[in-house]
Order: sequence, then C-alpha cells, then structure tokens
Amino acid sequence: MSTAGQVIRCKAAVAWEAGKPLSIEEVEVAPPQKQEVRIKILFTSLCHTDVYYWECKGYTPLFPRILGHEASGIVESVGEGVTDLQPGDHVLPIFTGECKKCRHCLSEETNNMCDLLRINCDRGVMLADGKTRFSINGKPIYHFVGTSTFSQYTVVHEGQVAKINPTAPLDKVCPISCGICTGFGATVNVAKPRKGQTVAIFGLGAVGLAAEGARVCGASRIIAVDLNPRRFEEAKKFGITEFVNPKDYNKPVQEVIVEMTGGGVDRSVECTGSVQAMISAFECVHDGWGVCVLVGVPKIDDAFKTHPLNLLSERTLKGAFYGNYKPVSDIPNFVNKYMNKELGIDMDKFITHSLPFADINKAFDYMLQGIGLRCLIHLDA
Amino acid sequence: MSTAGQVIRCKAAVAWEAGKPLSIEEVEVAPPQKQEVRIKILFTSLCHTDVYYWECKGYTPLFPRILGHEASGIVESVGEGVTDLQPGDHVLPIFTGECKKCRHCLSEETNNMCDLLRINCDRGVMLADGKTRFSINGKPIYHFVGTSTFSQYTVVHEGQVAKINPTAPLDKVCPISCGICTGFGATVNVAKPRKGQTVAIFGLGAVGLAAEGARVCGASRIIAVDLNPRRFEEAKKFGITEFVNPKDYNKPVQEVIVEMTGGGVDRSVECTGSVQAMISAFECVHDGWGVCVLVGVPKIDDAFKTHPLNLLSERTLKGAFYGNYKPVSDIPNFVNKYMNKELGIDMDKFITHSLPFADINKAFDYMLQGIGLRCLIHLDA
Ligand SMILES: NC(=O)c1ccc[n+]([C@@H]2O[C@H](COP(=O)([O-])OP(=O)(O)OC[C@H]3O[C@@H](n4cnc5c(N)ncnc54)[C@H](O)[C@@H]3O)[C@@H](O)[C@H]2O)c1
Ligand SMILES: NC(=O)c1ccc[n+]([C@@H]2O[C@H](COP(=O)([O-])OP(=O)(O)OC[C@H]3O[C@@H](n4cnc5c(N)ncnc54)[C@H](O)[C@@H]3O)[C@@H](O)[C@H]2O)c1
Ligand SMILES: [Zn+2]
Ligand SMILES: [Zn+2]
Ligand SMILES: [Zn+2]
Ligand SMILES: [Zn+2]
Repeated sequence: MSTAGQVIRCKAAVAWEAGKPLSIEEVEVAPPQKQEVRIKILFTSLCHTDVYYWECKGYTPLFPRILGHEASGIVESVGEGVTDLQPGDHVLPIFTGECKKCRHCLSEETNNMCDLLRINCDRGVMLADGKTRFSINGKPIYHFVGTSTFSQYTVVHEGQVAKINPTAPLDKVCPISCGICTGFGATVNVAKPRKGQTVAIFGLGAVGLAAEGARVCGASRIIAVDLNPRRFEEAKKFGITEFVNPKDYNKPVQEVIVEMTGGGVDRSVECTGSVQAMISAFECVHDGWGVCVLVGVPKIDDAFKTHPLNLLSERTLKGAFYGNYKPVSDIPNFVNKYMNKELGIDMDKFITHSLPFADINKAFDYMLQGIGLRCLIHLDA
Repeated sequence: MSTAGQVIRCKAAVAWEAGKPLSIEEVEVAPPQKQEVRIKILFTSLCHTDVYYWECKGYTPLFPRILGHEASGIVESVGEGVTDLQPGDHVLPIFTGECKKCRHCLSEETNNMCDLLRINCDRGVMLADGKTRFSINGKPIYHFVGTSTFSQYTVVHEGQVAKINPTAPLDKVCPISCGICTGFGATVNVAKPRKGQTVAIFGLGAVGLAAEGARVCGASRIIAVDLNPRRFEEAKKFGITEFVNPKDYNKPVQEVIVEMTGGGVDRSVECTGSVQAMISAFECVHDGWGVCVLVGVPKIDDAFKTHPLNLLSERTLKGAFYGNYKPVSDIPNFVNKYMNKELGIDMDKFITHSLPFADINKAFDYMLQGIGLRCLIHLDA
C-alpha cells in the first residue's frame, strides 16, 4: 500500500538539547510539498559538521532538531512539480543544492554556491512554507541543512537530491554525500596539484583522507598533519607515510613543513575546522606558486590572520565548499566513476565502523575521540 | 674615449637620512663586476616603494643610499661573463630578476620569485662581492633593490636588466620597469577577469591605473576606490567612471561595493599598500568565484585578517609581484607590444609631470600629496 500523500510515522534520532545524547523517538513525517521529495533513508554516517551543530559551541542553537546530512536512500514519494525524480529512485541527499536558475547556478565560473539552496545551518524549516515536515504530537522538530538524515524518512528539496546509479551499493556510497566529495574535490578540483608535486593535508578525518585524492593527480609526496596520533594509523591504510604531529615540535608546524620540503609544499588542504591549522596550512605552502585550500568549518568568532607579504610572494589562498561539486549535476557521475573503479581512491576504507540506529550516540563518541573514520548507521537495524 | 673599466664620476641623488630631502652629489661608480652591467640612466620616475624606503617608517633603515627603481637607460659597459648585453643596448633595470637556474626560474608554475635575484629591500650591496659600487670619497653609498636609478650611472646584475627594442622612446617606456607592469599584469596575468565582468581597483596611483588593463580583458564595469579625490580626476582620463571614496560613507567600503554590484565584484585588485584596503578589496568580491589580487607593499607589522567563511564561500585571495612578469624574459615583448599599440592601454598618460634631476625632491612632494601619477626625472637635465 502506497504511503504517498500520507503522514509517515517512523523512528528518528532527535537532538533535544545541545550536547545531550540524541533520543530515538517516533516522529511524524509530513508528505513532501511542492518541489520536495520524501526519502526513505537506509544509511547515514556522522560528519564533524553534525557534531558542531549538536555541541552548538558558538553556533546558533536550534532545538529540538534532527541532525544528519551524510546519507543514502530511496525516494518514497515526490511533491508537486518534481519531474526529475520518482518513487524508487536511489538517491543521496546533499547538504547544499542547485536551483539551476540563480546567478551562481548559471555562472560560467565553476561554483556551487546556489542562492536558493546553498547550505544554511541556521534554518530549521523548509523553504516552501517556512514550516517543518517533522513533528512529535504536533510539536515541530527542526530540520538541519535541509537533509536531517538521522530519521528513517526525511523530506528534502529536489535540488538537494542526487539521483544515482541504482546498482551502486547504498551503504558504500553513503559518505560520497558529504565527506568524500568534500575532501576529494578540494584537491582534485581546487588545489589541483601537478604531477610530482608535494601536498600537505591537515586533519586526517574522512574529509582529509579523501583529500589524499592528491595521489590521483600524481602528487609525489603527501605529508599528513594531525594532533591525534590514532588517526595516523588510519592514514597508513591509505598509503600515507609521512606524518607530522604539531605537538611533537616546539615551533609552528608550518616551519617544520617548510624545513622538511626545502621551502614549502606545493599545495595544502586544511580539513580540520581549526583556524590555527588554517593559518599553518597557508603558511607552509611554497612561495611563487603555493596554493592552500581551506575546507574545515570555522567557529563564528574565528579570524584568519597572516602577514600580507605571505600573499605578495605569490601564494594563493582559497576555500572549497563540497569539493566544488555541483550536487545534482556532478554527483551521479561521481558515483558512476566509483562503480567503474575510475576514482583512484579506495572508497571502501572510509567506513570503519557500523552501528544499528539505536546506538547512534556511540558514533558521536567515536567522532569526538577520533576513533576510526566514518561510522555507518543502519537506519533499518 | 671609452669609460669601460674606469670609475665614473657622475651625479646621484643621495638619501643621507630617513625622510630628509635627497641631495645631489658627485659620486664614484665602480666598473661592473662579474655578471654585472653598468647603465647610463636617462630617465627615472618615482614609485611609492621608493617613498616607503626613504621615509623608512617601519622598514629597515639603510643610509646613505641611492634609491630609485623605475628607469630606462643605455648600457655603458658590461662585466665579466655577461653575454646577452653589450654597450649601447637600450635597457630597463628591474627591481627583481631572473637567474634562469633556480627552482623558481625553472618551475613550470608561472612565477617570478627567483631565489637569487628576487627583490630584497634590505640588501644595500651587490651580490658578487657584498660591496657597493657607489662611493663618495671612498665612503660606500648603499644600493636599493639592486637598481639605484637616482644616479646618472648605476650598476645592476645582468639578471635584472631587460634589453628592449632600441626604437622604443626611453622616456615613455620608463614606467614599464615598475608601475605599469605591476598593475597591468596584476589584472591581465593574475586576476584575469572574464569578458563582461566587474572589477574594483583600490588605489589610483600609476599601479592602480595600470590595473585598468582590466578593460583589455573585456571588463564591463570598473569601480575605482581611493581616499584622495584628486586621483579621481586622473582616473577619468583613463575612462574610469565609477568612483568610491571610503570617506564618503559611514560603513566599510566593501559593503558599499557589495551593494553597488548586487553581491560583489568579480575581481578586485588592491594597489594601495594599506592593509585596511587589502581587507576591503578581498571582502568586496563575489562569493562563488570572486578573486582578489593584492599588490601594495604592506608595513612590517601589518596583519591581513578576515573571517575564514569569506574564503570557504569559494573566494580566492592571492598576491601579485611585478604583475607576474619575468623581468628579463617577458619585458622585451611587453615593450614591443607597446610599440605595436597592442597593449590596449594608453601608456603615455601615466607620465603627468617632468622635472630636471636637480628638482627630484619635488617628485617626492607630488607623490606624498597624490598630485599627478608618474613624475619623469630627466637625469641629463
Ligand atoms: N567545506 C565543506 O564543504 C565541508 C564538508 C564537510 C566537512 N567539513 C569540515 O571538514 C572538517 C573535517 O571533517 P571530518 O568529518 O573529517 O572531521 P574529523 O573530526 O573526523 O577530522 C578532523 C581531524 O582534524 C584534526 N585536527 C583538529 N585540529 C587540528 C589542528 N589544529 N591541527 C591538525 N589537526 C587537527 C583532528 O584531530 C581530526 O583528526 C570539519 O571542520 C568539518 O566540519 C567541511
Ligand atoms: N607588488 C609589486 O610588485 C609592487 C610594485 C610597485 C609598487 N607596489 C606598491 O603598489 C602600491 C601603489 O603604488 P603607486 O606607486 O601607484 O602609489 P601611489 O601612492 O601613487 O598610489 C596609491 C594610492 O592609494 C591610495 N590609498 C591609500 N590608502 C588607501 C585606502 N585605504 N583606500 C583607498 N585608497 C587608498 C592613495 O590615496 C593613492 O592614490 C604601493 O604600495 C607600492 O609600494 C607594488
Ligand atoms: Zn559533512
Ligand atoms: Zn541556484
Ligand atoms: Zn615600484
Ligand atoms: Zn632564479
């Protein structure tokens, strides 16, 4: 019997308060409105951005809320006006979108900062009517970045849904919807190391290890920087062999890297969210041509600070957002490349842990302690 | 009678103390050593960088010194090992050089940060022997950025000498050796606006007005920013029609520009040396694709400061040095383009004043008051 047009009652992990364990609740999920899609989420994993908005240290609090944005699932039903998606489609919901009409979507300059659907962490409602699609006994529960994937069913704007190859394994492609594309794209699409160049990666979570895609561009040397030595063990499995722990030195890590490389790395990619790491990542690139790409999500009151001469000596500093991929246009092809083994990175290594939905709080512990990389949560288990 | 191999006695404008008027003195100019060239300077003009090192506010003081780096002249004699230049060659001495052997000179990445010959404002001696070629009664007089063109004769490393078309008028090409290439290259080679895009230029000295070369790239709109309304009059002669004086607003100028353009300019080029203008120039570019290029020489204790989110929303910040031109390899061709009227900017408008050598201190007054653009000093008059 079709559930289309009906309210669905299902389980969701609700964050009631900042920093307090999520609780699995029965929620009501309203049908999708105009240009919306209701998705049955099968898998979701935790990204550090979820943790920031759960901890809410220096971010706008918005509770009760259903977090989650790295996920995969199947379209259950579609709202009015949705023509590119239909029930049964395999999809990845994405935290940022494409309206295909605004100056960003239409610009010739490669970018994915859609005016309508770009990430908005402070909005907890849907665009169509300014309301939530989640409720518990009539009390609205807020959305997160338009995806809220810590729920067995969620409602997402069609512009934030990538329709993927139905033969792709939904568990394995789950981290493509955030961490992997973010890190991989930051190097391959933005930092673009040339063959033989050296690359420094700051932060060895899933995002940073996906930045290891630098190897695909022919990077000769990858220097990995993290404060957590546990992450070096994970990184070794990705073939990384040079590690720097800033704690092991009594001088700024940028100086250490400049010495190790006789002048600096050719490219650096920051995947930590620490503004200190952002500054170090910039200041360790070679003068003349060095490019530093920032990826981590900073705190609200952070300031990036450097001497202008570091720029004048022909260094470049830029930021990458979702690896510069257009979510609806580019991700289907990314998944196909994964299926055809054309990506050049071993994507399956990113999922180091699996948990049933009921144990989702353990995934937060893992992330906070830096244990493993992605923890896959089985929404149906 | 040839002067080669002899000490030449000639006039030079010597800076004896920070901020005190230069005094025209008779100096002795030693013959060029290995890989050096002695040049008879015919014309020199004042660039703001000379003024900084003369005022020496926050820069390393090094006096007595012969300043000057924007100039044109004729080779008088060459030192041992110089094969690409000979007496009689028309040349532009350049404040930065090319050894053609170091990792910068040999790099595939476009850059001009030669390890051996890149600008060094703190060195007052020649590389060959760590000594000066200038003296007065045996007392050494320091060099400035390897050029010291406020002298009728000077000695320069061959890697800092661009040999130009002998039919080029030496007066008119003089500002190519610094200001014009710096500003023009910062847009054409580095900011690279696309056809139809908007560009903001901060600072309307010769460097900033050369950045008006943005028009050559097809920029549809150029917004000029300066604190000195007098400079707006000069800029009008270059066809610039939109001006913003930060003093006329009670909000940051970046906000004014974002409003004027409905989101920000596509490219900005900072040519002021003010760190506040650098920050404004960066923060007024459009998210998604905006590129800001810094050109101005900052103070030693300046800090460039911005919120990392301004970068994460896919803006790019970079610095340009001498317009990214390789001085010896690229400048001869730049001069030929000027001769063939292929540059697309009216280079002759940059020289607004002329003075005999004896009046060189007036040129400092003009620069400090922002009167005119380049003041051409006739060394022989
Ligand atoms: N821009 C985007 O589109 C986008 C998308 C997803 C994630 N992110 C951000 O990317 C960052 C990484 O995400 P993740 O899920 O891989 O997180 P993670 O917590 O798994 O990994 C971050 C790593 O950075 C390390 N680290 C923290 N501070 C450091 C410092 N000062 N120096 C060196 N290493 C340091 C931590 O030890 C950790 O191993 C986060 O800030 C996240 O919010 C950005
Ligand atoms: N990177 C390089 O290769 C290179 C080469 C030459 C010159 N420069 C530097 O470029 C800058 C410009 O040189 P110039 O010779 O054209 O100098 P200039 O003094 O003729 O012009 C600078 C202009 O900037 C304006 N200005 C100063 N502060 C400002 C602010 N906060 N906002 C707006 N406008 C402001 C001044 O009013 C002036 O009109 C200087 O800093 C100079 O040292 C750099
Ligand atoms: Zn994420
Ligand atoms: Zn859009
Ligand atoms: Zn100059
Ligand atoms: Zn060199």
